Amino acid sequence: MDFFKVIGQDKDTYARVGRIFTLHGQIETPCFIPVGTQGTVKTLSPHDLKGASAQIILSNAYHLFLRPGIDVIKKIGSLGRFISWDGPILTDSGGYQIFSLALLRKVTDEGVEFQSHIDGLRHFLTPENIIKIQKDLGSDIIMPLDECVHYPTSRDYAEVATKRTLEWARRSKLASSNYLGTEDHQYLFGIVQGATYEDLRKVCVRGLIDMNFSGYALGGLSVGEPKDLRFNIIEFTCRWLPQDKPRYLMGVGLPEEIVEAVGLGIDMFDCVVPTRYGRNGTAFTWEGKIIVRNAPYSEDFRPLDKDCGCYTCKNFTRAYLRHLFNAEEILGLRLVSLHNVYFYLNLMQKIREAISQNRFLEFKKEFFNRYHNLDPNL
Amino acid sequence: MDFFKVIGQDKDTYARVGRIFTLHGQIETPCFIPVGTQGTVKTLSPHDLKGASAQIILSNAYHLFLRPGIDVIKKIGSLGRFISWDGPILTDSGGYQIFSLALLRKVTDEGVEFQSHIDGLRHFLTPENIIKIQKDLGSDIIMPLDECVHYPTSRDYAEVATKRTLEWARRSKLASSNYLGTEDHQYLFGIVQGATYEDLRKVCVRGLIDMNFSGYALGGLSVGEPKDLRFNIIEFTCRWLPQDKPRYLMGVGLPEEIVEAVGLGIDMFDCVVPTRYGRNGTAFTWEGKIIVRNAPYSEDFRPLDKDCGCYTCKNFTRAYLRHLFNAEEILGLRLVSLHNVYFYLNLMQKIREAISQNRFLEFKKEFFNRYHNLDPNL
Repeated sequence: MDFFKVIGQDKDTYARVGRIFTLHGQIETPCFIPVGTQGTVKTLSPHDLKGASAQIILSNAYHLFLRPGIDVIKKIGSLGRFISWDGPILTDSGGYQIFSLALLRKVTDEGVEFQSHIDGLRHFLTPENIIKIQKDLGSDIIMPLDECVHYPTSRDYAEVATKRTLEWARRSKLASSNYLGTEDHQYLFGIVQGATYEDLRKVCVRGLIDMNFSGYALGGLSVGEPKDLRFNIIEFTCRWLPQDKPRYLMGVGLPEEIVEAVGLGIDMFDCVVPTRYGRNGTAFTWEGKIIVRNAPYSEDFRPLDKDCGCYTCKNFTRAYLRHLFNAEEILGLRLVSLHNVYFYLNLMQKIREAISQNRFLEFKKEFFNRYHNLDPNL
Repeated sequence: MDFFKVIGQDKDTYARVGRIFTLHGQIETPCFIPVGTQGTVKTLSPHDLKGASAQIILSNAYHLFLRPGIDVIKKIGSLGRFISWDGPILTDSGGYQIFSLALLRKVTDEGVEFQSHIDGLRHFLTPENIIKIQKDLGSDIIMPLDECVHYPTSRDYAEVATKRTLEWARRSKLASSNYLGTEDHQYLFGIVQGATYEDLRKVCVRGLIDMNFSGYALGGLSVGEPKDLRFNIIEFTCRWLPQDKPRYLMGVGLPEEIVEAVGLGIDMFDCVVPTRYGRNGTAFTWEGKIIVRNAPYSEDFRPLDKDCGCYTCKNFTRAYLRHLFNAEEILGLRLVSLHNVYFYLNLMQKIREAISQNRFLEFKKEFFNRYHNLDPNL
């Protein structure tokens, strides 16, 4: 069975609906992947995630390698068993984290030497290690080690990093073929880097396509570059990528960015925004964002979003959520995180419906009309 | 219909099973009441509490008066509606909190003047205010303002505080009769104070019985007094209290204290221990306490308690819970709190079964044999 199948193509845009097949279940695309960096989508249980219709979650190989350690997870069988999540899991390699969190980093063509951001212990990770780690985690979709540069980066350094990312992708593919049999049902993606340089992005895409990955991720975005530039890169990269493979925009983004990127042909998204904003007391609604701690909500007995079917909206008012945040009660962080994850997954559902019905442009217009029409009293 | 009915009496001890009838549901006794001071049992949702078979929860009039304010709750109708809990609620008056948390406290016979521990604003609360507040909260069982003294307290001051508590009880009863009709289905308890002085406790009990409350609470315990003294007070107070009214031991305690106190005739308990310990990563099991953060659990793939049917034990290992605590993930606080509340409620269920079957002494013996037999490897 194919790993990915395009089921429908919007007539006006590059948006498409598809389906990913994994050992742990199917994933309808375009999809949003809630982020569980350390083996838990922050504040939420697997039961909460199922209730919000999460199809797949993401975890991070770098974080799990440092804590609790891969041996622990290997002993119980897999990451899914360790965290009690029976659905599909995508693990990020941790390339981005090594380049943003780790201390005293030393990058060579061989791999990366760094100090753990937790205890300062030194580690050396190679593309091969990272594949082995993800084999042990048993995740369904795995990512190669890549070098993620920040914005702005000189063309010279961006070229070095892009070439290294390509070479690491080649070694990851080789390691994957050697260590992992197809019976493992783990699918390796290629990650497109190249900073903001169109020619480097193109070189990277072509090199990756030649190696034939199961899917292609757009990395190195949302690292400080202007939004126009980001969407320009997404647009031309999507045009170069093959039609029959899923396209995954890593770490992006806000609801409006997701709607925009779907129209350019992106199939998969992950982002910490719904849970991070949730813990800060910011809720997403079809009318825009709500900062629940704010005084106007103190006697507002409406749910966060009147059209939302999540546990939070079916049971609690803005006034109660505001009280929980003011009283520094953990239940508040959880209820708003749950709502936000539900909102994101519901947004994806509506996006898929719109594409299937060939009315994505109409949906997009309606979404922006409503989402940006922020009532100052909300 | 009677508010309380004794259904069975243990043949060997003073333990008994009973049933409390409220507008929002029945409560089988002996019962444990999870504490939701600020309108949430910390980290847990109403759905979690129902899943753990909670029959009733407790909240605090003093805390809710300060934040979010009674007006907010009155506007939505009741505390139950505000927090989305449709079962019975007991509200504590906040007497204990005013005497432990509030700043610059000034007690007179009229009432208590104090500064809020949150924002320093000055408030004056009387027994009548406190009844009015609880009427507005719409709780099923309400408590009068009392003066709770710490240990040790001189006999002279204890006498003043006891007399004041009695006078405040009288005024509370009067206010309750005036402001609240029986159609409100709110039941007022009397609180026995008297510090560690047997004669003062006796005076207080007799005074309260003369006023005929719906139930009687033992206050001013677990405030620093030796355990033997505490149980001595519980024992003689229970003997003085009427058979046909529920006896409520406020703020106590650990599982072993509950088992002990049930044997002396206590029907109701509340305590922050299961959730506070849960947030500190200490879990209660039938074999004793487990500190999940400890290293021996790093590769322990057993549930917290093999005999437990809670969501945590059915889905997660000690190794995963340890990881969550080490990684400072909120899900850990929640999963151990949930287990602990479930453990307490399950303990009460087993206590009720044992009493019903006239084998409470046997149960108690088995409980202590097993609970204190702490395996250092656990």
